[in-house]
Amino acid sequence: MRVAITESDTQKFTKNTNFTVAEIASRSIIKLLLKSRIQKSEIDGIIVSSNSFEPYLSNIIAEMVGIKPKFSTKVENLCNSGTSGILLAYSLIQSGLCNAVLVTGVDKQDSPGNKLNWDITRGIFDMPVHWASLFASNHFRKYGTTQEDLAFVSLKNHRNANKNPNAIFFEKYFTFDQIIDAQVVAAPLKKFDCCYPCEGASSVLLVSEELAARFEQPIWIIGISQSNLGASFASVNKILDGIVSTKIAARDAFSQSKLTPSDIDIAELHDAFSILEIMAYEDIGFVKKGEGKKMLREHFVYTNTRGGLLGCGHPIGATGIDQTSEITLQLQGLAKQRQVNNLKTGLVHNMAAAGTSTSIIILKN
Amino acid sequence: MRVAITESDTQKFTKNTNFTVAEIASRSIIKLLLKSRIQKSEIDGIIVSSNSFEPYLSNIIAEMVGIKPKFSTKVENLCNSGTSGILLAYSLIQSGLCNAVLVTGVDKQDSPGNKLNWDITRGIFDMPVHWASLFASNHFRKYGTTQEDLAFVSLKNHRNANKNPNAIFFEKYFTFDQIIDAQVVAAPLKKFDCCYPCEGASSVLLVSEELAARFEQPIWIIGISQSNLGASFASVNKILDGIVSTKIAARDAFSQSKLTPSDIDIAELHDAFSILEIMAYEDIGFVKKGEGKKMLREHFVYTNTRGGLLGCGHPIGATGIDQTSEITLQLQGLAKQRQVNNLKTGLVHNMAAAGTSTSIIILKN
Repeated sequence: MRVAITESDTQKFTKNTNFTVAEIASRSIIKLLLKSRIQKSEIDGIIVSSNSFEPYLSNIIAEMVGIKPKFSTKVENLCNSGTSGILLAYSLIQSGLCNAVLVTGVDKQDSPGNKLNWDITRGIFDMPVHWASLFASNHFRKYGTTQEDLAFVSLKNHRNANKNPNAIFFEKYFTFDQIIDAQVVAAPLKKFDCCYPCEGASSVLLVSEELAARFEQPIWIIGISQSNLGASFASVNKILDGIVSTKIAARDAFSQSKLTPSDIDIAELHDAFSILEIMAYEDIGFVKKGEGKKMLREHFVYTNTRGGLLGCGHPIGATGIDQTSEITLQLQGLAKQRQVNNLKTGLVHNMAAAGTSTSIIILKN
Repeated sequence: MRVAITESDTQKFTKNTNFTVAEIASRSIIKLLLKSRIQKSEIDGIIVSSNSFEPYLSNIIAEMVGIKPKFSTKVENLCNSGTSGILLAYSLIQSGLCNAVLVTGVDKQDSPGNKLNWDITRGIFDMPVHWASLFASNHFRKYGTTQEDLAFVSLKNHRNANKNPNAIFFEKYFTFDQIIDAQVVAAPLKKFDCCYPCEGASSVLLVSEELAARFEQPIWIIGISQSNLGASFASVNKILDGIVSTKIAARDAFSQSKLTPSDIDIAELHDAFSILEIMAYEDIGFVKKGEGKKMLREHFVYTNTRGGLLGCGHPIGATGIDQTSEITLQLQGLAKQRQVNNLKTGLVHNMAAAGTSTSIIILKN
């Protein structure tokens, strides 16, 4: 049994509105269903990915959009929630329990997922930027990566976001100089090296091979994996030389898909901080360890065409879904002004909490 | 691919201790693994079912117990969280993504899952007992069910709990007169017609057919289904004549298992309120509509041998797991002083929020 993603919708990422998470998520689902070839009555699974505290959220959303699914649940796995939901939807279909599963991710700007105060191994350095700055310092020292390399990641992703109407930085233009001269947040990371927590929702529809036949351009999940090494920064990252969970999840997903990194045409990478994109190049295997900055100059893989977390903003539970939506749209040729030509395979990289967990999804048209 | 439950552990249900949900859940997992034939390194999935607000809970627990699973997430689906986790674990194994998945449920007495104030269709009647009292009144009026019938459900389940060391009412004896003369909570429901929110954790291990071969008594999941009809009381329960989600989930699970209600030897039923057990008899199909009270007198199916929610207490995220654990132990012949003889098949019935969702699991030894 093959599983496909056929449709997606993203609601514009924004700052705090007065809408509830249930309302934002419902709007995304309604938009997706309006244009769908799948009827509401055929949707037999809803998974809601969110860090919000709302109880029974998936059933509340199901009722709001008028769906009575066989299976419904909320999942929470910090920044890795979205792809956790997609992996579960894949398994519900692959196992034969469901035929069509909606996965919707949603969070508000003040999401509880922004706080890492439960991780006492971080000491007083309990903001996500603190651990990212350690990774960046180590990469600078060990591999000669520079402030300019980081700024270049941010510039690239902001330029992509300028073409994405759903991005919080849509049509907001910054120059290289503005990025590199911005204020330091936690050295060496500056303002535009850090993603912006925001509000938003994104949905994808996963269907069985049988239902996928109704669509002209189903996008197939040919590899899907996750790796969880723990929850606390210090116990997982004893050596700051890359994200180990990314290496493991990528290895497993490539093995499942029978592809190698050189087969990938386009990728969405979890650039919560600019250094993470450079490390992702290396840990996924696009380039050798330490050569991440080289890849920035050689465009053999298109990366973060939607703008990444740096350019789109980061509505925590929605991010992994919007990343997957972008790869789906690109492989379907529906990415409008962001469209890259001649794509066959794409990859999604989504992670949480100092890289303690990573999901990798490999897609093919 | 068949999926089996091989082992379980339940930590004594109790009132509030100073332990965190992560600590309580971890203790349950450690106890399960101590006696297991599955090595920690073989566990490739952890699903934590909880209504608590702790972020990243499944990864925190995984780190505390020393497991680095391929897949990890927290699920929340109110009182139906536990079996939602088991259904997902089943699908992860059935789909080939995982081989051995631990499902752990945990909640504290003051769990946020106790509050239903998000359901504005309940008006000022926002406690769970309010909707149960409506169902009870309707059953009294329509089918002649009586206060004595309800008291008899409570008495039976408390007597069973007296033999269950994990139950909050272990060795706490009440007479029929004490139960029927107790104070009214929401007429016609009295004190012992209502379950007791408490603290506790319960874990089950699901494994692939290949790993199940290591065990002498794997218990096979031969039917597993869920039905979600919405979230709000009034929009789902237009007619108060039974729990519709239970009927649908039971029909689907029986269809999958190729069994009928008359094939079931033992069942754990979601008796959050005594009337719900009588309605479950009817809606699952053990007896015809309106004949629930008859079944109380005719013991053709053993019910709630662990004591039910009425006798065990109700640590929300743990309940569905402990129900499944009880059926597993009974089918394995390991239920000690509660053991029923000559069992072949068992059923778990777990639901949430005025019956807006139900899960049914059918097990076989």
